[in-house]
Amino acid sequence: MINSVDKTSFPPHLAGIKGKLTIVKVGGKIVEEAESLKKLLADFSKIEGYKVLVHGGGRSATAMAAKLGIESKMVNGRRITDSEMLNVVTMVYGGLVNKQIVAGLQAVNVNALGLTGADLNYMRSEKRPVKEVDYGFVGDVKEVNADILADLIGKGVVPVLAPLTHDKNGNLLNTNADTIAGEAAKALSKHFEVTLMYCFEKKGVLLDENDDESVITNLTPTLFEKYVSNGIIQGGMIPKLENSFEALYAGVKQVIITRSDKIHTNNGTVISLL
Amino acid sequence: MINSVDKTSFPPHLAGIKGKLTIVKVGGKIVEEAESLKKLLADFSKIEGYKVLVHGGGRSATAMAAKLGIESKMVNGRRITDSEMLNVVTMVYGGLVNKQIVAGLQAVNVNALGLTGADLNYMRSEKRPVKEVDYGFVGDVKEVNADILADLIGKGVVPVLAPLTHDKNGNLLNTNADTIAGEAAKALSKHFEVTLMYCFEKKGVLLDENDDESVITNLTPTLFEKYVSNGIIQGGMIPKLENSFEALYAGVKQVIITRSDKIHTNNGTVISLL
Repeated sequence: MINSVDKTSFPPHLAGIKGKLTIVKVGGKIVEEAESLKKLLADFSKIEGYKVLVHGGGRSATAMAAKLGIESKMVNGRRITDSEMLNVVTMVYGGLVNKQIVAGLQAVNVNALGLTGADLNYMRSEKRPVKEVDYGFVGDVKEVNADILADLIGKGVVPVLAPLTHDKNGNLLNTNADTIAGEAAKALSKHFEVTLMYCFEKKGVLLDENDDESVITNLTPTLFEKYVSNGIIQGGMIPKLENSFEALYAGVKQVIITRSDKIHTNNGTVISLL
Repeated sequence: MINSVDKTSFPPHLAGIKGKLTIVKVGGKIVEEAESLKKLLADFSKIEGYKVLVHGGGRSATAMAAKLGIESKMVNGRRITDSEMLNVVTMVYGGLVNKQIVAGLQAVNVNALGLTGADLNYMRSEKRPVKEVDYGFVGDVKEVNADILADLIGKGVVPVLAPLTHDKNGNLLNTNADTIAGEAAKALSKHFEVTLMYCFEKKGVLLDENDDESVITNLTPTLFEKYVSNGIIQGGMIPKLENSFEALYAGVKQVIITRSDKIHTNNGTVISLL
């Protein structure tokens, strides 16, 4: 039955040569201002090989909610998404921000396709169970249908992923953009050699937080442990890097933390297992 | 060179058997209320063969604009789209309405994909020239790239088209949903045997406007001329039907005008050339 085996289901080292795919996650600020968005899309268009863009949009959502008289409630840096706020993020993430990026990419000859998890049912989630905090209409990712995405990417289409998923029961759910990027990267690793790139305000993870040039160029699990134990890496960077290693263990080739104007250079902190 | 000829580029009668595609256009009112939307999507899911849904959203856009303190200006029943209003329609059509439909269709196992004209560059337009009226950021359709749409449709994907196009220079443009449906139908006729279905408040075009049951079941160019000359068909229905005939002359198999609860029955006024 060897002929009927789908090569792409082999572990990466047995799958032969796979195309290179870069998944870039950018935060809200950069994509929410016309000038910085234009620069970003020009840089993004220079990335060679297959690519995917994942965007946030929190500042725009907060601003739009305020205009509509809806208060933004945050707990531990996460948005509480009640039904009114769900409509706001659906409009802002799925409509305003996503479609402006798609139109901007088409203008630089990138054949973009804007998606929420509901589109093509590419990412299904479940509403987060209520524990100490009721986050409301927030989704925890349960299933990624990467095959149809991979097929489109292989044809030169560039998916632009909004931070929204769905539960397959008709409900959209607000979902963290870092999570979308990580889950898409893991699932697409079956089909591509994936570089997952997180954009950050700094040029990478810094050895000295007061020196913007002190970028740690390579980070492995061993080095990460060392930097955590001696206090060089601390705070919110620890879970971010733990998630990066989790993506690597799940098949992603490398994770790069860099500044948005460096996405086409591969400079920054390159995180890998070896 | 006969082997290299793309069969789908032949005129319909030479192209062999093509798959049946139904393109349903529904107005804003039905898709903007949860209950009527749910009923519509259930009926839509019962349509056999390939399908596409095209939606409006004008009432929601007007309501959202009002909440944001933006006045909706209409001339001859058409919206004037200034830059603020363009943001509103991008949010409402491309985000809120489109994504709720997509999520609703996924819940009834229809593999929906929400699109604006910018997505996949499937519909390019140009900003309408300013003549007596400056409609603002409104697009006149110039180019439909149906091949990639047809490929997705052939794989079981159901495009959900929002009434937005783009100019390929980074600008989204507000575009009438009837026009989107008609242009998509014409372009997709190269690949499919297309039925274009316009939903209407009545069960079809009526012989007697005071009798909802007096539906004209078949309309040909000859009958249309007769009904116009004797005053049975008048007013806004004339340009609507002229557009329907134009679609037929451009390759669409039939146009059906029906009520939204009849979309899965093929009842209504069937408009054809013979």
